[in-house]
Amino acid sequence: MDSMPLDAPMKPLDPHAIAGDSQAILEFLAEYYRDVDKYPVRAADLEPGRVRKLLPEAAPEHGEPMEHILEDVRRDILPGLTHWQSPRFFAFFPMNASSAGLAGEMLSVGLNVVPFVWAASPAAAELESVVVDWMARLFSLPRRFLFSGGGGGVLQGSTCEAVVCTLAAARDRALGRLGGHEAIARLVVYASDQTHATFQKGAQLVGIPSSNFRVIRTSAASGYGLTAEAVRAAVGLGLVPLYLCATVGTTGLGAVDHVRELGEEARRHGMWVHLDAAYAGSAAICPEFQDYLDGAELADSVSMNPHKWFLTNMDCCCLWVARPRDLTSALSTDPEYLKNVGADDGGAGNPAAIDYKDWQISMSRRFRAIKLWVILRRYGAAGMRAHIRRHVAAAKWFEQRVAADERFEVVVPRRFSLVCFRLAPRFGRDDDDGDDATNHANRDLLAAVNASGRAFMTHFVVDGKFVIRLAVGGASTELQHVMEVWDLLQGKAAEVLQHYVKPNGL
Amino acid sequence: MDSMPLDAPMKPLDPHAIAGDSQAILEFLAEYYRDVDKYPVRAADLEPGRVRKLLPEAAPEHGEPMEHILEDVRRDILPGLTHWQSPRFFAFFPMNASSAGLAGEMLSVGLNVVPFVWAASPAAAELESVVVDWMARLFSLPRRFLFSGGGGGVLQGSTCEAVVCTLAAARDRALGRLGGHEAIARLVVYASDQTHATFQKGAQLVGIPSSNFRVIRTSAASGYGLTAEAVRAAVGLGLVPLYLCATVGTTGLGAVDHVRELGEEARRHGMWVHLDAAYAGSAAICPEFQDYLDGAELADSVSMNPHKWFLTNMDCCCLWVARPRDLTSALSTDPEYLKNVGADDGGAGNPAAIDYKDWQISMSRRFRAIKLWVILRRYGAAGMRAHIRRHVAAAKWFEQRVAADERFEVVVPRRFSLVCFRLAPRFGRDDDDGDDATNHANRDLLAAVNASGRAFMTHFVVDGKFVIRLAVGGASTELQHVMEVWDLLQGKAAEVLQHYVKPNGL
Repeated sequence: MDSMPLDAPMKPLDPHAIAGDSQAILEFLAEYYRDVDKYPVRAADLEPGRVRKLLPEAAPEHGEPMEHILEDVRRDILPGLTHWQSPRFFAFFPMNASSAGLAGEMLSVGLNVVPFVWAASPAAAELESVVVDWMARLFSLPRRFLFSGGGGGVLQGSTCEAVVCTLAAARDRALGRLGGHEAIARLVVYASDQTHATFQKGAQLVGIPSSNFRVIRTSAASGYGLTAEAVRAAVGLGLVPLYLCATVGTTGLGAVDHVRELGEEARRHGMWVHLDAAYAGSAAICPEFQDYLDGAELADSVSMNPHKWFLTNMDCCCLWVARPRDLTSALSTDPEYLKNVGADDGGAGNPAAIDYKDWQISMSRRFRAIKLWVILRRYGAAGMRAHIRRHVAAAKWFEQRVAADERFEVVVPRRFSLVCFRLAPRFGRDDDDGDDATNHANRDLLAAVNASGRAFMTHFVVDGKFVIRLAVGGASTELQHVMEVWDLLQGKAAEVLQHYVKPNGL
Repeated sequence: MDSMPLDAPMKPLDPHAIAGDSQAILEFLAEYYRDVDKYPVRAADLEPGRVRKLLPEAAPEHGEPMEHILEDVRRDILPGLTHWQSPRFFAFFPMNASSAGLAGEMLSVGLNVVPFVWAASPAAAELESVVVDWMARLFSLPRRFLFSGGGGGVLQGSTCEAVVCTLAAARDRALGRLGGHEAIARLVVYASDQTHATFQKGAQLVGIPSSNFRVIRTSAASGYGLTAEAVRAAVGLGLVPLYLCATVGTTGLGAVDHVRELGEEARRHGMWVHLDAAYAGSAAICPEFQDYLDGAELADSVSMNPHKWFLTNMDCCCLWVARPRDLTSALSTDPEYLKNVGADDGGAGNPAAIDYKDWQISMSRRFRAIKLWVILRRYGAAGMRAHIRRHVAAAKWFEQRVAADERFEVVVPRRFSLVCFRLAPRFGRDDDDGDDATNHANRDLLAAVNASGRAFMTHFVVDGKFVIRLAVGGASTELQHVMEVWDLLQGKAAEVLQHYVKPNGL
């Protein structure tokens, strides 16, 4: 592992070089995970440009030993990271890591094969089709999304990619029907005000005019879930309803759209229905959560992200479609330099020989399947259910504490492992839920908790209310960490409320 | 590493679990790289569905030890892989792996932070802006693509992503100028008949009508490079020239478009120019190859893929833009649940605090920067130049052998490490370069070489000629392997030519 002498031939894949470089990283990671709980969860020093200033302006001329590089990681990089794998990370949604996920990724990146067409690594393509079927079965998805049911799945990097691909499929199907590319300006897509921003971005990317992106309001009455009635009221005349995005477990509040009735309504208008279960889809491995996917057989496509709450290191998004041909019609390419693989080898048109480049945005692709497969093998369905239930139980415990404390209130009922709560209004203006004083108090409370370094949470705003989100789901988050964050919140709340209690002691 | 008892709590990030699972993979990979040269390069048994049949229909209920999983990889998966990291892999373009690349990826996936906005991991975002600047300097890109020059770079997964993002930026800029979304049907994009298929796919994805995708023919006279004259002749009236893709090192033949004159021509029409140097960009680390990028200052964006020939395991694509605002205007989103990070922390609008989600398709993203940074540190610029020159020298050696053997011919002059050659016409029909007999002979020769398992090459067709491509660039490919493939080719050529030599002994 010494610096390479200038005249030594490079052997970048020599087993000794692999062992040496990797071993240094493994030791570093073992140390990192021993200590991660001690670091401030969120980077303490947020002055922009600090890290940039620490680093030289140009790459080194000569190679360096891995130990030197890791010393710099410890000194310059680690203090500027937000530790997403801290057991005290409750922000956004979890992005899971695990020993099996790391191992699976090492296998993927170590073999470094590129299954862009089936023939370019048949076992990799076939393992992918197997593992997406396994996932569909684990979540009890309708048979139409399995290869044996005429559908099928693919592993992509993110929900946004899945949305872009399915929007393009829906768009091209519609344009084929309407005749004339100008009709693209009449295509309309629908989402709720709780749908992830990635959907709007995806719609813009595929050329849907931003004025045709329709955001339908939700309300507390439906638990901030989108209803068929609201969609019916929104679908206008003269334009072409193209695509509806339904979400199970929204980012802000964990709300659930009413999948069955949305599917029925969308079918009346000939719309493509995409079911985004990025976060909460993982919970469907437990039978008690499968009802939320009721009606999924009315969807045209479904996506969920194992990299969120399913112990899968970044990145991995499962996308299933009911009619693969819609997808491949929009995404296929057939250049000459690929004709020697695929068609000649019996690959083309054979459902057992999938050219996955035609199921995604990019031509090239990683061997993600082996990562997800290693994880499923290593932990098993039982292990995954235990993982999910452990977090749901901890979130439930927290929700009960919040509900029992008169200073706080639960803003929307918890469905999975996300608790949305706040300091309750205290100043005799209970009718004004979004009053400034209450919002300021909550903003201050969140800032104080995050500044402590002992937890990191994020917020949401709904109906004018500033809401604090506790998203339980870190791979090493236990009930104990949730209990500690509750203690922390109580202490900080006492401090914050001192400033807000009026002199007359209301 | 035993199977977990059912009642044991899962500790997916326990340092012992990480060490155990990872160690098993490291041993597996060391064994793999000791043996990879012995495997048939291309999966021998190409019967579709074979691997699928070997695997159970559903995920296991209970977790299993890593050793069992790796036994299955050895028995069921490895024999069905094409070994992209074999030193005898000469197909497509190389997809490099290296010990530093694996180590860097382990660090990235082990820390598993998500720098989608600057504040979500400041050091990760800043390291990315540093490392893309390092790369730009290594390749002597014009200053306008560096952050200090008003431009900047981002790490994406593939050229297709880079093309989609820049096409969307160009499209939205043009639509803003033209007024009215219907104008999308008048936007025209230009490429040569040698441009990678990913460009057509990207254009379709962003909603450019397929009839407005203009393929300009190239010819042997320009070395199959695109010329300004050809573009000038192709730009039509009544439509809006939007975007021109210029390539340095095309996939089929390694051709080079005439960047400077194309840039000048495109500017006359107000077109966005993207410079795709996916493969050959790596060579620009050597001064002797930097002339190919002459005129790059006339481009609006440049991309190259370190995962091809720059010792970077999949995936990593550098995209630089001259005006980041064009990119972020098309790709920004600003949902409420991100407002607590970024703006409040001084991040918004600060060039030192980049929200990289607005520079790419997806919202979420991996910490790719640390991988590329580890590689640059570990090997240094000198190591990288040696890596490139070693392959160029081997390709040159091969080209000379081909040229000196009267049975063969070099079809286009080699520029980098790709040699395009074939068995020369032998049957008195030299005027007909694309004659069937010659093409059949070459097809048979390629099939025989690939069937041997001792090399894997792919083909291309140009001007009706079936051309064999030898793409040198595997991380462990040495001159010795190129010499062996030349021996192999000579032997197989003798066999093939026996069938084609006419009875009269022509």
